[in-house]
Amino acid sequence: MTMQDLGQHARAAARQLARATTDQKNVALATLANRLTADRAEILAANAQDIAEAQAGGLAPARLDRLTLNEARLAGIAADLRNVVALPDPVGETFDATTLPNGLAIRKQRVPIGVIGVIYEARPNVTLDVAGLALKTGNAVILRGGSETLNSNRVLVAVIRRVLADSGLPPDAVQFVDDADRARVTELLALDEYVDMIIPRGGAGLHKFCREHSRIPVITGGIGICHLFVDESADLDAALNVIHNAKTQRPTVCNALDTALVHRAVAAEFLPRLVQRLSAEGVTFRADPVAVSIFHPLPSTVMPAGPDDFDTEWLSLVLGLKVVDHLDEAIAHIAAHSTGHSDGILTCDDAHAARFIAEVDSAAVYVNASTRFTDGGQFGLGAEVAISTQRLHARGPMGLRELTTYKWVVIGAGHVRP
Amino acid sequence: MTMQDLGQHARAAARQLARATTDQKNVALATLANRLTADRAEILAANAQDIAEAQAGGLAPARLDRLTLNEARLAGIAADLRNVVALPDPVGETFDATTLPNGLAIRKQRVPIGVIGVIYEARPNVTLDVAGLALKTGNAVILRGGSETLNSNRVLVAVIRRVLADSGLPPDAVQFVDDADRARVTELLALDEYVDMIIPRGGAGLHKFCREHSRIPVITGGIGICHLFVDESADLDAALNVIHNAKTQRPTVCNALDTALVHRAVAAEFLPRLVQRLSAEGVTFRADPVAVSIFHPLPSTVMPAGPDDFDTEWLSLVLGLKVVDHLDEAIAHIAAHSTGHSDGILTCDDAHAARFIAEVDSAAVYVNASTRFTDGGQFGLGAEVAISTQRLHARGPMGLRELTTYKWVVIGAGHVRP
Repeated sequence: MTMQDLGQHARAAARQLARATTDQKNVALATLANRLTADRAEILAANAQDIAEAQAGGLAPARLDRLTLNEARLAGIAADLRNVVALPDPVGETFDATTLPNGLAIRKQRVPIGVIGVIYEARPNVTLDVAGLALKTGNAVILRGGSETLNSNRVLVAVIRRVLADSGLPPDAVQFVDDADRARVTELLALDEYVDMIIPRGGAGLHKFCREHSRIPVITGGIGICHLFVDESADLDAALNVIHNAKTQRPTVCNALDTALVHRAVAAEFLPRLVQRLSAEGVTFRADPVAVSIFHPLPSTVMPAGPDDFDTEWLSLVLGLKVVDHLDEAIAHIAAHSTGHSDGILTCDDAHAARFIAEVDSAAVYVNASTRFTDGGQFGLGAEVAISTQRLHARGPMGLRELTTYKWVVIGAGHVRP
Repeated sequence: MTMQDLGQHARAAARQLARATTDQKNVALATLANRLTADRAEILAANAQDIAEAQAGGLAPARLDRLTLNEARLAGIAADLRNVVALPDPVGETFDATTLPNGLAIRKQRVPIGVIGVIYEARPNVTLDVAGLALKTGNAVILRGGSETLNSNRVLVAVIRRVLADSGLPPDAVQFVDDADRARVTELLALDEYVDMIIPRGGAGLHKFCREHSRIPVITGGIGICHLFVDESADLDAALNVIHNAKTQRPTVCNALDTALVHRAVAAEFLPRLVQRLSAEGVTFRADPVAVSIFHPLPSTVMPAGPDDFDTEWLSLVLGLKVVDHLDEAIAHIAAHSTGHSDGILTCDDAHAARFIAEVDSAAVYVNASTRFTDGGQFGLGAEVAISTQRLHARGPMGLRELTTYKWVVIGAGHVRP
């Protein structure tokens, strides 16, 4: 099948799936969860083949781990799918309903977006995760996973399509790009006739590639250079805990802290405590000249920041340190260096908190809390499709609702426009 | 200035403008309205120069009319700006506020989108219209008007920028591409570092060009191949009135009717009445074979439909006619030929109305009303930025709120993620 064919089939299936009832979709999701156990032998055999090929190819251990499935992981994915069953179906919800002075009854009604293209790396769990969320919201998907997981994804997609068929839903609603050639990605990005939205799930390079080549709206995100500013008035014990959490609780993810900005008035007291506490956890630091000058002698974990260090998403136990003279300098630094993901202030000054909220324009702006909360589950959305750092459609954690759009429904009684 | 410079200046100004109070913005808008009268001599002189050049160049009368300003039109534009003053400012509104079980207070807060690029044709009123709506919502704009209005736009933008400066707001919030070279459009579409959204206001060709070349999200819309389906159960008198209104009330606009679908059971009665009534208004018809077969003899205003006629946005007094066997065929025809703008059913059968609403996925879906209502003003939005026929961010008429996005604001008391 050409990419054009995939698109056409997905579009036709999307029209059908949009009319599926919540019950139909939930039955299919629950069946899929059960199938992961029933069909585990077939799934794990395909995955073992991927693992063997990846090992032979010398794939890094961390990536090898991400592409590995086992019974426990399949059970976890099945539990996630059952969780999606339990979430409310946004499709069909009406809002902004009103009756105009001329008697026209007007409302907005949520509908699926249509066809969503998802481009991701070698993580077979994403195949099930995305297919489940798309199914719940009545969207067709075209899946383009990493080449290292081709065998796993081929089997997983076959399982999903069988479940759809058995549930009376169109199997074509889940399309799979069964071809490792990168040219297929470029072709997918040009299918604006059939695809309504592209979600890249991967690093900055993939996001940039999609933005540059796509004729379809792209949800970019997941890249976080995150800041916390320790204001003059901060509760320093609390600030220490929050920074410790934001940096070390899970350093490899996008909402982990990258740079701590510290007000000059508290820097001499706070920075040594911070370095001592976090060094014990294996954190190393990149400090600006003023921060460096505070230490006598310089601890072994602290080194002067290089020219790009404040523009780096660390994704590891490294933390930038910078001393600022006032709130304005902190806000200006964030405006210049943040990726607009998650930035916060630690302060006991309400006026400073209010200014920070008003002037820092990131997807999530925090006062006295860890940036690690930027997450669909933590924000109460029940599920997370992506974390958007672009500005249209949705910002920050995207849940099921953000996989829908709306149409206007207008009911008259022979109304004509004067 | 290079386009890069324009982008950089607009971005810096957007940051400032985002913090302007509603009062500051309203004073600037009211001052601008006044300035259109005070500075009318300068504005009309520049416009006269454009008109003279366009006449010498042989511009078509309709386009010449659109680029013409006069005192009455300036007064109309000033009235529109004063209307925008009276509208509520969406910036700063909070919604979806909640306190999570862990005590984190979380809310969404509306913020400007940032920098909006607007590409439009030779209509100087759009310059003021767009600048006014962007100013009200705290967005910077980069304006790229038609080459025939370069003189008018140069003066209008100078007036706007003086008003901004006089009001203590950043004049750089309104940038103008003072260069008729089409290469500047392509450059604008690549400024994804500085521009957050592109709104093309023009024909299908411009929209397609933007989608294909833009790295920035594009709001496409304004192209309407609109349908009304006369169901078996329709009140035929009412249907006649609604189709008459949808086709003739203002045939040159995107929400005007293009195709009437008529149920076979009522075609023999309804079509001759429709043709008689609308022919008297100068409408001509493109009829499918079944519709043609109903007439004996064929009226002079009816001709057989050509192969592309049901895929044509007429923007004139032409109407496609097609007889369908049932609701399903009407829905399938709309799915195949509609641009997803405005489509409706004329029926007295509630079940058919419900199925039409559920299965026709256009930005506006009508029951027993004219498609001409798809309009920001008619829908009660107070103003209209564009009518979106794409699916992300906003669909259908876009008002002030659709020129904003949101950020998440999270307030804790030293919260850390477990």
